[in-house]
Amino acid sequence: MTTDYKPYNTVLRLWFMIHRTHDMLKMCEDQVFGEYKLTREQYILLLAIMYLGEPARPTDIARWVGRSTNSVSMLVDRMVKAGLLKRVRDRSDRRVVNVFITSKGNTAIEPATRAGWEYVWKIISPLPDEDKHTLIRLLEQVQYEASSYLNQGADIEGIMRNEAKSCDNLMQRLIAYLG
Amino acid sequence: MTTDYKPYNTVLRLWFMIHRTHDMLKMCEDQVFGEYKLTREQYILLLAIMYLGEPARPTDIARWVGRSTNSVSMLVDRMVKAGLLKRVRDRSDRRVVNVFITSKGNTAIEPATRAGWEYVWKIISPLPDEDKHTLIRLLEQVQYEASSYLNQGADIEGIMRNEAKSCDNLMQRLIAYLG
Repeated sequence: MTTDYKPYNTVLRLWFMIHRTHDMLKMCEDQVFGEYKLTREQYILLLAIMYLGEPARPTDIARWVGRSTNSVSMLVDRMVKAGLLKRVRDRSDRRVVNVFITSKGNTAIEPATRAGWEYVWKIISPLPDEDKHTLIRLLEQVQYEASSYLNQGADIEGIMRNEAKSCDNLMQRLIAYLG
Repeated sequence: MTTDYKPYNTVLRLWFMIHRTHDMLKMCEDQVFGEYKLTREQYILLLAIMYLGEPARPTDIARWVGRSTNSVSMLVDRMVKAGLLKRVRDRSDRRVVNVFITSKGNTAIEPATRAGWEYVWKIISPLPDEDKHTLIRLLEQVQYEASSYLNQGADIEGIMRNEAKSCDNLMQRLIAYLG
């Protein structure tokens, strides 16, 4: 009887494992960035602004982090209150809000990035190199399927290429930043 | 010059890919469950209560979904307002809150689970079986490292075995539920 369930089981299990692995890394990251009085979300927002360049606009940040502009605006609110960001209205168009990192935010980001990097190295580097490359390749395949689901009829190869390019760009910047 | 960056690049890229794959699946799931007027978060909460059995307590739900009791309580609030859950104080201990799924919640959960399953199948099943098993095995290794990081000095093999058991349990229930 149980053998009938096997293929379903593998599919469900893999789906579950992708989410679960993310959840566990997220817990680690909350712990790592918590040392610098940052939540993981706040750290990612600072990283997005650093990547996009200052001043950044909530709509651009939202696109970069894959969240709604509304939820990014709420997070920006809390980070303004925490003294990590400042928000300035654009002089030429008052409807536009520009977001800057404060000196407090800038002071937190450097050691947090360094600690984050040490943690990523600790978790990921023990995997043999061949396994790392295999894992990247297989996750790319899942992403390809997800992208086809989300962007039906679009040029998925093109979307994936752009994604890979902006990912590489971020990696290079992070590595340069970490010296 | 760039070859110096290579190992760092692979490590960072893999870390990024795990989160990115999760994010993309999350976007798909918001779309899938949105058809049933549920957010992905709300669906997972309903699933948790179904799994834990009714009535469920916010602390147990929080442990199951890997979030804080506080954030689960806020989500329960919103779902009570949306008519998906009802909340009843325990008769023997008034401090304890019991959470039940309403008939509206129950009506949504069955087609949402079916649609969710169809989507998971669509995304995951195209991968060759061997790749599926490889991906599961490699993600388990990353989880092992993350678990060692989170639970220093603990019996990681034991924790992983318990995780796998409760995951299997959930899979079996889902498969039985879907008939």
